Amino acid sequence: MPIESGDYILLVVEGRREKRFLVRVKQGESFHTHKGYINFDDIIGKEFGSVTKTNTGARVLLLRPTTYDVMEKLSRATQIIYPKDAGFMIIKAGIMPGAKVLEAGTGSGSMTIALSRAVGPEGKVYSYEKDERFYEVAKRNIERFSLGNVELRLKDIKEGVDEKDLDAAFLDLPEPWDVTEIVKKAIKPGSPVIVFVPSFEQVKKTVVQMRKTGFGLVEVNEILIRGIESDEERTRPSTRMIGHTGFIISGRRLLEQE
Amino acid sequence: MPIESGDYILLVVEGRREKRFLVRVKQGESFHTHKGYINFDDIIGKEFGSVTKTNTGARVLLLRPTTYDVMEKLSRATQIIYPKDAGFMIIKAGIMPGAKVLEAGTGSGSMTIALSRAVGPEGKVYSYEKDERFYEVAKRNIERFSLGNVELRLKDIKEGVDEKDLDAAFLDLPEPWDVTEIVKKAIKPGSPVIVFVPSFEQVKKTVVQMRKTGFGLVEVNEILIRGIESDEERTRPSTRMIGHTGFIISGRRLLEQE
Amino acid sequence: MPIESGDYILLVVEGRREKRFLVRVKQGESFHTHKGYINFDDIIGKEFGSVTKTNTGARVLLLRPTTYDVMEKLSRATQIIYPKDAGFMIIKAGIMPGAKVLEAGTGSGSMTIALSRAVGPEGKVYSYEKDERFYEVAKRNIERFSLGNVELRLKDIKEGVDEKDLDAAFLDLPEPWDVTEIVKKAIKPGSPVIVFVPSFEQVKKTVVQMRKTGFGLVEVNEILIRGIESDEERTRPSTRMIGHTGFIISGRRLLEQE
Amino acid sequence: MPIESGDYILLVVEGRREKRFLVRVKQGESFHTHKGYINFDDIIGKEFGSVTKTNTGARVLLLRPTTYDVMEKLSRATQIIYPKDAGFMIIKAGIMPGAKVLEAGTGSGSMTIALSRAVGPEGKVYSYEKDERFYEVAKRNIERFSLGNVELRLKDIKEGVDEKDLDAAFLDLPEPWDVTEIVKKAIKPGSPVIVFVPSFEQVKKTVVQMRKTGFGLVEVNEILIRGIESDEERTRPSTRMIGHTGFIISGRRLLEQE
Repeated sequence: MPIESGDYILLVVEGRREKRFLVRVKQGESFHTHKGYINFDDIIGKEFGSVTKTNTGARVLLLRPTTYDVMEKLSRATQIIYPKDAGFMIIKAGIMPGAKVLEAGTGSGSMTIALSRAVGPEGKVYSYEKDERFYEVAKRNIERFSLGNVELRLKDIKEGVDEKDLDAAFLDLPEPWDVTEIVKKAIKPGSPVIVFVPSFEQVKKTVVQMRKTGFGLVEVNEILIRGIESDEERTRPSTRMIGHTGFIISGRRLLEQE
Repeated sequence: MPIESGDYILLVVEGRREKRFLVRVKQGESFHTHKGYINFDDIIGKEFGSVTKTNTGARVLLLRPTTYDVMEKLSRATQIIYPKDAGFMIIKAGIMPGAKVLEAGTGSGSMTIALSRAVGPEGKVYSYEKDERFYEVAKRNIERFSLGNVELRLKDIKEGVDEKDLDAAFLDLPEPWDVTEIVKKAIKPGSPVIVFVPSFEQVKKTVVQMRKTGFGLVEVNEILIRGIESDEERTRPSTRMIGHTGFIISGRRLLEQE
Repeated sequence: MPIESGDYILLVVEGRREKRFLVRVKQGESFHTHKGYINFDDIIGKEFGSVTKTNTGARVLLLRPTTYDVMEKLSRATQIIYPKDAGFMIIKAGIMPGAKVLEAGTGSGSMTIALSRAVGPEGKVYSYEKDERFYEVAKRNIERFSLGNVELRLKDIKEGVDEKDLDAAFLDLPEPWDVTEIVKKAIKPGSPVIVFVPSFEQVKKTVVQMRKTGFGLVEVNEILIRGIESDEERTRPSTRMIGHTGFIISGRRLLEQE
Repeated sequence: MPIESGDYILLVVEGRREKRFLVRVKQGESFHTHKGYINFDDIIGKEFGSVTKTNTGARVLLLRPTTYDVMEKLSRATQIIYPKDAGFMIIKAGIMPGAKVLEAGTGSGSMTIALSRAVGPEGKVYSYEKDERFYEVAKRNIERFSLGNVELRLKDIKEGVDEKDLDAAFLDLPEPWDVTEIVKKAIKPGSPVIVFVPSFEQVKKTVVQMRKTGFGLVEVNEILIRGIESDEERTRPSTRMIGHTGFIISGRRLLEQE
């Protein structure tokens, strides 16, 4: 499929200090990098996967952004849920196309976009954000990168969830223990809830509260990603890595025994 | 939704040594655990998420298996791709509902099932396995846990791929460098290929070959998962962890410059 | 130097399932392994570093045990401080030959032995253990593997430390926050205290209490060790690893400002 | 012990962005930090462990540098052996006061200093460096921070080692496989050799060569350090960490069987 004006593309400038840009192609405009510029008119009509050059001769890859690429770019802005965490969270919750899921809080919308792309056009993401500034940022990001299946609400989830019988819930809130009861009522029995928190104090309070509220199979994991550099000469782990993003708590809503 | 005879369920026996079983419910039969048994007739008709007890009084959770649960059970048998890796691979490749993807080799079918559930009923997984024993194991697992969107082929991928214009490729082969050219022809320009290999020698040979064959954005990562134990008294990482499963190489098919 | 009767040696039986034994050589006796036995009389008089064989032909290395070897063997019994942690703790505290250090509690004496070997014959280790059973175990281990520079006391450190002007303190206690004041008085101004605890709750309480008691440069680290398997065919991290032993808190006694 | 002119001290400026300086106290001079300056004359005569203030009121800790502090400062300059690695290497080799050890190459002298402080005044470190620039840097660092027990040689270890019957060898060279035979002759039978290399290619070549040359108990480990932030409000791993420094290969010289 050819690149059109209006498309978001991942533009990779190769080299020792490779750089990746998530940019919107616009007819008549150009894009400046650390190694020269390209004119968008020269790439409109090219296939995704094409290779072009800047005016100074640097190689540039023109790629369709994956969920990972989008999240990586958005994550750098707000430093919350990284794609390594999102991949785990989605598979842990068993999200499939057609699923209807709850999210709170939306933040920059990075996880919302990952969920939107996982549930697909037959599915739905209901995402709650109480902070108007985050809501505006998320709205813009969701418009750009989701599949049009997101209902974004400017509302504190503590005031209640409008939906019922949802298939899963994802929480990225500072005090998730406050809303376990509300979340429980919004999802089907047996359904998973996944919580993302950065500190151990939050882990403990959330785990204890989830067990009290009637969630089972409660467990906590963290995901670490380590980059490896490899070429003809040598292969070795990268010197720097992210040491911590957050802990992922998962559990299932149980039906109380009578 | 109530549990029916024939359903696969995740049966969790709670306790200090919690145990999880992936079992098929069968009318008239019973299931024996390390803490007593349950009669399937007593749980047929119950909602997923229900809690029951064994004859000796141990609490048992009745849950619908998520992709993660299925993979975890199948992975233990063959020790290849773990759900932590699958989540990363799927999001890294940007797999969305409706995608048509290539897989080789199928192995036990664990990753095939994860892909099947990620692409959904509108998508398709073409999976190649040359070893007849693996093929038979995978076939059975795929019948049980996929969405009916998998074409499993008993064929060495080195002999060629029958499909074209696929959206992504996933390779779990001992010598992936042998098939980069074949894989390249099977996927659309710009599309991702994801390779899973356990050793550094394989990483290097694959990376070098991928770059030669015309893949770009080639990078290598590994995913580590660390369990955390938490209750009212104390919170600490688990004593044991899996130190290594494999390295994940990713790249994109480039269109050669004319 | 030749092996004598009475020596402790590290006896390594090579093979796919290599096994290491820490054993005492005794004239007239033999040692049985999973791959046959050796007679001690056959190895007495051999040099350390020699290679011998069991009666069934398995290769056996005869080595002098290092601090690491001793700790590894003792650690497996009690699962507390591992050599990877001890190495860090000793270098973090800047222990040098001749140093006089405090330890509480002794446990199995594994860390005591490491400290004994680090401070050398000119130094001294004062080690407090309140539990009589641990005291007896530690006493035996210390007699075997220390340099004769350990004063082991059967005493709860909460009741006070008899020594003053020590160069460093090492604490492996469930409630180290109870003794920060006592430890502070026992060590020289500016000297390091190193605390080993397994849980986050203990980390927090200890850190907060240390800062209150007048310790500076308080920081927390954990040390992970990952084994790598390498031979002519392939190089890869080991499948299993220890995910957690404990957290290491370090700080320095400050002199209050007047 | 009071601080004197000529002493090296660790000067810690507290605050949200704590900074540590390894500086030499000089009568009549002052030291400028990001938060004001101190006059050395005001701290000469104070006890180590004292707390002072800069002219702008920032709290400053005056500490005796530990081996760790010295290495951390020197390591940042050359990015080779970190204290986390040195602690492991020293305990793995079982270095005790009085030991006589070989080192090649010296680099900045960071590991040399750690070894000097581990073997003590009764011990000896023979350190080989072939590059004159490194030799000069190391010489200065060793003069400042070792115990006067280091013999530094400007010589390529490939040309031979002048000493015999040493207790251990430490190698930090790009091609350690070239010198296994030479190293073997310099150390006592049964003695450990420890090699530090950053890449997998080096690991494999070294391991294979060591086994060929007659070293036993050859194993490879890597040490990861993860910082934890803790205060009254929250406890969590630090966002950033060092993902890789190097791999540590260890083995023992065997006596060939006749």
